[in-house]
Amino acid sequence: MTTVITLLTDYGLEDGFVASCHGVIAGIAPQARIIDVCHLVPAGDVRRGAAILAQTVPYLPPGVHVGLVDPNAGGPRRAVAVEAGDRVFLGPDNGLLSWAIHASGGATAAYEITNDALFRKPVSPTFHGRDVFAPVAAHLVTGRRPADLGPELELSRLVSLPEPTSHLREGSVEGEVVSVDGYGNTQLSITAADVAALGVRPGDTIAVWLGRRRLSMPFRESFASVPPGELVAFADSAGLVAFAVNSGDAAQLLGLPPGAHVRLAPAA
Amino acid sequence: MTTVITLLTDYGLEDGFVASCHGVIAGIAPQARIIDVCHLVPAGDVRRGAAILAQTVPYLPPGVHVGLVDPNAGGPRRAVAVEAGDRVFLGPDNGLLSWAIHASGGATAAYEITNDALFRKPVSPTFHGRDVFAPVAAHLVTGRRPADLGPELELSRLVSLPEPTSHLREGSVEGEVVSVDGYGNTQLSITAADVAALGVRPGDTIAVWLGRRRLSMPFRESFASVPPGELVAFADSAGLVAFAVNSGDAAQLLGLPPGAHVRLAPAA
Amino acid sequence: MTTVITLLTDYGLEDGFVASCHGVIAGIAPQARIIDVCHLVPAGDVRRGAAILAQTVPYLPPGVHVGLVDPNAGGPRRAVAVEAGDRVFLGPDNGLLSWAIHASGGATAAYEITNDALFRKPVSPTFHGRDVFAPVAAHLVTGRRPADLGPELELSRLVSLPEPTSHLREGSVEGEVVSVDGYGNTQLSITAADVAALGVRPGDTIAVWLGRRRLSMPFRESFASVPPGELVAFADSAGLVAFAVNSGDAAQLLGLPPGAHVRLAPAA
Repeated sequence: MTTVITLLTDYGLEDGFVASCHGVIAGIAPQARIIDVCHLVPAGDVRRGAAILAQTVPYLPPGVHVGLVDPNAGGPRRAVAVEAGDRVFLGPDNGLLSWAIHASGGATAAYEITNDALFRKPVSPTFHGRDVFAPVAAHLVTGRRPADLGPELELSRLVSLPEPTSHLREGSVEGEVVSVDGYGNTQLSITAADVAALGVRPGDTIAVWLGRRRLSMPFRESFASVPPGELVAFADSAGLVAFAVNSGDAAQLLGLPPGAHVRLAPAA
Repeated sequence: MTTVITLLTDYGLEDGFVASCHGVIAGIAPQARIIDVCHLVPAGDVRRGAAILAQTVPYLPPGVHVGLVDPNAGGPRRAVAVEAGDRVFLGPDNGLLSWAIHASGGATAAYEITNDALFRKPVSPTFHGRDVFAPVAAHLVTGRRPADLGPELELSRLVSLPEPTSHLREGSVEGEVVSVDGYGNTQLSITAADVAALGVRPGDTIAVWLGRRRLSMPFRESFASVPPGELVAFADSAGLVAFAVNSGDAAQLLGLPPGAHVRLAPAA
Repeated sequence: MTTVITLLTDYGLEDGFVASCHGVIAGIAPQARIIDVCHLVPAGDVRRGAAILAQTVPYLPPGVHVGLVDPNAGGPRRAVAVEAGDRVFLGPDNGLLSWAIHASGGATAAYEITNDALFRKPVSPTFHGRDVFAPVAAHLVTGRRPADLGPELELSRLVSLPEPTSHLREGSVEGEVVSVDGYGNTQLSITAADVAALGVRPGDTIAVWLGRRRLSMPFRESFASVPPGELVAFADSAGLVAFAVNSGDAAQLLGLPPGAHVRLAPAA
């Protein structure tokens, strides 16, 4: 049985909220090894949380992966446990977990978390992380099974965020902005394989359409392959094409929000 | 014997200060399990540190709880160890620990930390966290007892912050702002039980007096029970009434500093 | 064999980058105890990273110490493992590790990290922390030796940052700004021993030359020995003279960048 519990939240680090979750887990399951994935997800930004979790989970040991970006905490959304391969994901059923589940091979079983014998009482309406998810995660590493948490759910009823996609056509590839990281790197749904299929290699120049703007950009191995201050496209550490400014902030320069449409092609 | 050591400081995360404390502890007591409560207490803000510690400690396993918000580090304040139930609190005797001690059932014994055989030498005048408190905490989890740290103190001589209180009278309840969290939620000394005693239930509207201002506010289960951008009062995860703006910043909107006087009543 | 791995990076805390490194380590070496030294080194600031690591490492247990501030990630710089006493340092060969190695008694052996059997595949050109350094660190705590990582390097070929120095002459001491910490404290290359050699004692006043400016400043035990808002010089927790403003920001007040020249003398 795994003893790894990972936590991703938008709780921030200025309060004791994360520590309360650590404390509840350590009290129930002293053997748990907790890995903090990120606690600075922008408040309520389910999509950014989903991207961070999906891109980190392949590097985490199998475990219980808790995701808590829950703008409707205290509202009517379900709490769910989803098995995917040798991982169990816990969180609100709002799509936050969906990309990470996909990256883990897809859901094999899901349960609504309703067994309040496993909760910490009284349950605060606004802090399910501490009173529901932390104790449930701890119980899973002490031997409880996901099926003990509540009734099984049909997998098709789980809420999913639309999976960012890319389309190759007529010598170009279209996609969208998935996520902007803490450096301002602007990550696309276009994969390294997509641009390779267009014949683009590191060292080439690409044409980029952002709405009505058209830019020309070097495609390189790394953001560090261009001089400081220059814009570059590269395949990032998640295998996705990203725009960056070496030692700068591409998001600020380009002003591309998540969801924005992007088209790439080899430069003419 | 516990192996849990928890740390709350205003050291920030931009330097190696917290890591130095972790390192000293791990060197003396490799078996210690360290839980970081919070290191982003605003510099020197003893009251905010006290609130975070008191509201987190009920969720932490029994252990050695170190609090280091010490605007007079290097000055004449005492270093103390205070036993409360199965917990031991270490820190400067400036009131920082007092609310957490109260929340843990009250002090049962206290000692001045003077036994410099347990310190790391040389002791820096400005970094007692690393050279005094971290090694002392580590020695406590390797078998030393609080009485080994120095002379016993009369409990009445410990410095306490004034405990925030509330007063029910004439159909209203008065209290003060205890703390403003990282979201801007403004937490009062008025408890969920106080407003229940006034007959206020989630779903009701309350009247709020802030100095000469009078507001009307919904009282709800959660900050998420109102539309984004709207002000709400609710019983927070510490059991205290708080003002929040859903997806917003109540502190910015209301401008209420810790200590500000507040009165609540059922709306007429 | 040590099980301690420490991490210092400029990855920030807003993404899953640090967690990916933790996860890779935990997957290979579940017994590893990871200490996060600092992840908020300003992006690409090798000198600041070097100062934090050198000033923290004396307080860390012997272990594998990974430093990742690597503005030329993906460029041609070498990855190295350097033994110093009972510590092993891993990082880019760009000087980042050099002050910490010096503080640990100096390098006794060095290896270029080329044995890609120990890497995580595929190796991202922009995330050697996750794919090269984290797995290599983990393998070192599971029994691999530094000599297994790649060919030995001549110690004289390691890149070093110029060691900040101080010079006593004609009744004064000259040095430079080493580092500015998160509080704005401005740390000099001038040691507590230097000012003692000039006969300066806590309680004295010193004359300070900053370029063409000349200031008079109290020299005290601690930044807290002067009233809030006042400038003070003191011997900091690393044994170096620093300028601070009690409850304020000396860096903002003085505007001294790392490298700036400073001269001190007893006040006339």
